[in-house]
Amino acid sequence: MKTNAVRNSTSHAIGDVFEVLGTNSVYRRVTVKPAMSGHNSLFVGQIGDWTWDAVTALCGTNVFSAINASGAPTYLAFYYFHLRSSPTIHSTGFTFGDRIEVVSTLFNFGSESILTLHRIKKEGEGKVSPQQIDLEEFYDFPRNDCLYVETFNRWVARSREKSNQDLIKSSPVDFKYAHLCSLPDRYSPRLICGFARTNNTFHNTQSPQHVCLVDSFHTEYSIDITRDINGVGLVYFASYFSIIDGALLKLWKHLGRSAQSFLDRIVLDHKLCYFGNADIDSLLRITLKSWQKVGDPGHEVYNTVIQDSETARVIAVSTMHVLSEIAI
Amino acid sequence: MKTNAVRNSTSHAIGDVFEVLGTNSVYRRVTVKPAMSGHNSLFVGQIGDWTWDAVTALCGTNVFSAINASGAPTYLAFYYFHLRSSPTIHSTGFTFGDRIEVVSTLFNFGSESILTLHRIKKEGEGKVSPQQIDLEEFYDFPRNDCLYVETFNRWVARSREKSNQDLIKSSPVDFKYAHLCSLPDRYSPRLICGFARTNNTFHNTQSPQHVCLVDSFHTEYSIDITRDINGVGLVYFASYFSIIDGALLKLWKHLGRSAQSFLDRIVLDHKLCYFGNADIDSLLRITLKSWQKVGDPGHEVYNTVIQDSETARVIAVSTMHVLSEIAI
Repeated sequence: MKTNAVRNSTSHAIGDVFEVLGTNSVYRRVTVKPAMSGHNSLFVGQIGDWTWDAVTALCGTNVFSAINASGAPTYLAFYYFHLRSSPTIHSTGFTFGDRIEVVSTLFNFGSESILTLHRIKKEGEGKVSPQQIDLEEFYDFPRNDCLYVETFNRWVARSREKSNQDLIKSSPVDFKYAHLCSLPDRYSPRLICGFARTNNTFHNTQSPQHVCLVDSFHTEYSIDITRDINGVGLVYFASYFSIIDGALLKLWKHLGRSAQSFLDRIVLDHKLCYFGNADIDSLLRITLKSWQKVGDPGHEVYNTVIQDSETARVIAVSTMHVLSEIAI
Repeated sequence: MKTNAVRNSTSHAIGDVFEVLGTNSVYRRVTVKPAMSGHNSLFVGQIGDWTWDAVTALCGTNVFSAINASGAPTYLAFYYFHLRSSPTIHSTGFTFGDRIEVVSTLFNFGSESILTLHRIKKEGEGKVSPQQIDLEEFYDFPRNDCLYVETFNRWVARSREKSNQDLIKSSPVDFKYAHLCSLPDRYSPRLICGFARTNNTFHNTQSPQHVCLVDSFHTEYSIDITRDINGVGLVYFASYFSIIDGALLKLWKHLGRSAQSFLDRIVLDHKLCYFGNADIDSLLRITLKSWQKVGDPGHEVYNTVIQDSETARVIAVSTMHVLSEIAI
């Protein structure tokens, strides 16, 4: 958290840039602003809009007002969200006035889905040309001055008016995707999400490199209609990040840790899969479990399972790798 | 809330526009997106960024990374926020894909403050040329197809590291304001804020046109460090809108009303003055009072006073005029 540190003020222009790069990528340069930063889910929400912007720019359909063949609204819903970061650059580490560059590249997953890879870096740091994303860099050799984000989205429409459950697949007629490259199978999010659906975690719970810290911590959350509902009456995907953080904070305090150490934590890796949507009056049951890395106890893994408390249906599964104060 | 209604999808371009109009105004045309809409404070937060954008574009200083003469960060903090809307256009009524046009005009309030007027309308509706704002229209004859927003901001810096209290006046050296017009005294927010500071309300509590509905309703709120803290460690101004809505929802339920009727309410007028800042571990005491308009019981007035529970210091005062389900 920056407080009274001296900082430079050189650019007086807003100077945001948005450009299409070839047929599958977009580039943007933006100033970090209050409405997209902080110890909250605003930055994650911003990335969500960048996914929709990229698809709108490259796939022939306006995602923000898309309709399916029946003329009903259809939404490019978030199914899987994966952030990969470092102590140098992470989602709650941005402050007002930071200048960042984002390259977003799309991949073909057929008519009903789309994968978007975002690479985010501070402007002028390191030499990364604004070209489409290099898959080996993204998945195998990430740079520690870049924040990498993978979003896997599916077209969904409501099957029943006023209900947010049983959303159905439903792509817009004008959605173009054949010009996009496919992703090599080894990187497919389907495998990863399938594992999480089966195991209620992205973590290998048999890993000998991790020891259990907290076996099971339960809490509850009622959807907050003053914060969690988006512009079409669905629970906002970014709100789940706050719901998970809220549950994690309860566990954090249960472990006797301070609010400041919570704010100071660094999320190195966060995978989140959305398996269902909640209604606006839902009560959610949340179960956390955590592990510490052997030989590196400041590196912790937190797993969160969110269920509808009435039906026990799993709504979301999240696994976070966190650097806690022990390590910082 | 739009659900399965058919809607048009004609524009496939993102097509956002930002232009400077003369020496005192900016114009923008934007698509409403998930990160700036919904039953939450995202749209209000977006308007806050538009104030900072306008000052950055017109006043010679980059508000997002401003520093004062000592080289310390200084923030253009929100002191007064006033929304004036109608059933046709109001802050929670926007949905994904709506296209809106915004004109923002700045007024000279000396070296330490700035007043910004925003006029927001749906694109293509009505004939409003993108010129600077007409004061008589804004204050005396508002159109019902426009949302009017007034923000009054003051330059503040921290006086003590790690504390959000006792923020001091502190404008950046390069802040230019002499080229801006003054606002006629009769429109000055200083009078309005002075009234609210003295009376803990913007409402004339002696008004014979209103009868008291709820004399005093008390609740509490702990600052939520997973949602309320902005990118520089201060409580985010937009969070107060959610804090007020959360308290109002409790009162709403206390009156036996439904969550859906809460979501369906229309805020016609909202004045909010920030008299102090809270620390991140603050517990807030919130007191609500409400009135109904004589002869129009669906038109309700809700007053909210937010105090620091430890010192009883008033942090914020808010008065909302709301159309409730009784009227809709």
